Amino acid sequence: MTTIHPLPSGTRDVLPDEMRELRSVTAALLGTFEREGYGEVSTPALEHQEVLERAGGAQPAYRVMDEHGQVLALRPDMTVPIARLAATRYADIDPPLRFCYLAHVYRGVRPHRGQMREFLQAGVELVGAPSPEGTAEVLRVLCAALDATGLRDYRVGLGSAALYPALLETHGVPLEARAVLLGALVARDFVGLERELRALDLSSEARAALITAPSARGGLEVLDLLPATEGLRAVHALLTPQVADRVLLDLGLTRDLSYYTGAVFEVYDPALGEPLGGGGRYDDLLGRFGRPLPAVGFALGVDKLHIALTGEEERT
Amino acid sequence: MTTIHPLPSGTRDVLPDEMRELRSVTAALLGTFEREGYGEVSTPALEHQEVLERAGGAQPAYRVMDEHGQVLALRPDMTVPIARLAATRYADIDPPLRFCYLAHVYRGVRPHRGQMREFLQAGVELVGAPSPEGTAEVLRVLCAALDATGLRDYRVGLGSAALYPALLETHGVPLEARAVLLGALVARDFVGLERELRALDLSSEARAALITAPSARGGLEVLDLLPATEGLRAVHALLTPQVADRVLLDLGLTRDLSYYTGAVFEVYDPALGEPLGGGGRYDDLLGRFGRPLPAVGFALGVDKLHIALTGEEERT
Repeated sequence: MTTIHPLPSGTRDVLPDEMRELRSVTAALLGTFEREGYGEVSTPALEHQEVLERAGGAQPAYRVMDEHGQVLALRPDMTVPIARLAATRYADIDPPLRFCYLAHVYRGVRPHRGQMREFLQAGVELVGAPSPEGTAEVLRVLCAALDATGLRDYRVGLGSAALYPALLETHGVPLEARAVLLGALVARDFVGLERELRALDLSSEARAALITAPSARGGLEVLDLLPATEGLRAVHALLTPQVADRVLLDLGLTRDLSYYTGAVFEVYDPALGEPLGGGGRYDDLLGRFGRPLPAVGFALGVDKLHIALTGEEERT
Repeated sequence: MTTIHPLPSGTRDVLPDEMRELRSVTAALLGTFEREGYGEVSTPALEHQEVLERAGGAQPAYRVMDEHGQVLALRPDMTVPIARLAATRYADIDPPLRFCYLAHVYRGVRPHRGQMREFLQAGVELVGAPSPEGTAEVLRVLCAALDATGLRDYRVGLGSAALYPALLETHGVPLEARAVLLGALVARDFVGLERELRALDLSSEARAALITAPSARGGLEVLDLLPATEGLRAVHALLTPQVADRVLLDLGLTRDLSYYTGAVFEVYDPALGEPLGGGGRYDDLLGRFGRPLPAVGFALGVDKLHIALTGEEERT
């Protein structure tokens, strides 16, 4: 008798040998977060769809009805639930508030892309600490946590979600053209970006600036290329030498969650072909839950981090 | 501005102080399971509905469609996913197989009953170890894990899902009447049970036996009241003195999952008004996934265990 019991695509079983390694990675992360003053919280995997959608971030892909006919959804990330929690359960507590988590999140997948439907994230949210101090703190915690896992060769790309919009404004790009340009940038589609820019009626200087800025990567010198980089400069000035050594400024970096308002960052490792995590500032999100406070946080993909760690070991 | 962001009923946020206590409870449980040779596994929260329903246990309450139009559901327990995993991923490995887990499960709720929609369970499954040895091992692991959390006053009720059906057979109760009687027993509705028995055409001896047996609780002497108790007697004979001291034989104990085939047990603590966990033998479940092997396991409700621990402390 052949009985096939396939798992849904984008989900998987974790067997004991791997599980032991994952537990060691997550213990290192959570231990660092706690030492740095971030208290672990847990929120329900199912929340009211309306709450999860209010933030304009990753949209929930799985909806169920409760017994009252209300629509619940599986959370696509932990930033929005923790923003809700901070705004409601800590309404009378003076900021800053420091939270961390280890939780599964759920995303829609497109067939045959190898995307994960369910994955485990570990991260922190720092609520009520404005830039540059808050951003610099979270970058320090990020590097301390990665160091604690034993990851060796990672770099942190640092950009700003506010930079390119400011540049579009500076060069007088019409409002109605900006969404397409930002979409190309988020997708890191530089060919498409250049094509769209060439179709616009811009001075050749403006066009050149808008094409070259997103490919500027490196040390502090890349900030001289652009206006409106004081924010990033201030964050960079607060980084410890160890963290600054890991950071690579990347003016083309932006992230695909619309709630980011300022600094954004991603973690790369040569042993993995994609970012293993990232984060940024979301200074407007808490306000949507009734308590306007600036905030910044990051999430690491635990499986991706584990793959990077294993890859680094194999290279040794 | 008043903004309300209610959580779905039956779900909750866990804040850092409580989370730290829950982590200490789950570390004690998982540490014991690992020391006893049980390897931790993780399975997806979303599985194909057909797989989850095949077992005839707790039925999934939340269904979603994937992008191919297939029906996925949130797991209502971990026993069925681990049975699937054992039958498929360990098809060529000699038993016994020992697994443990710490995972959220999802159940439907009825309004205003205070039932939880999402809760965290920790447990073990021992696959391929028949009774009485397998059952005695799992009872030992259960008590070792509870001892490791510091729980002091718990008792383990031990009965058998096979006992009352055997008694109904012995006394010639018609097949068509048995489901109602077993339903009353599962619900611990002894008044309803007696009413149903009085409505049947039975000898007064048979009726008396069927009414009194389910209320028999105590030490080994209660096994003398009934036929077909050799199985429980054999399990009891293998218990260490420490475990035997915790065990209370309970001939009326049965559990509401239809996959139980033999010994069943529940954990009680005077600080909690309901069982904080339980388990039993499910010797036919693995066969439904293509690998017939006897099995036994248990699940503890982490929140309930935490409440019992807190309650015991307050009584001290």
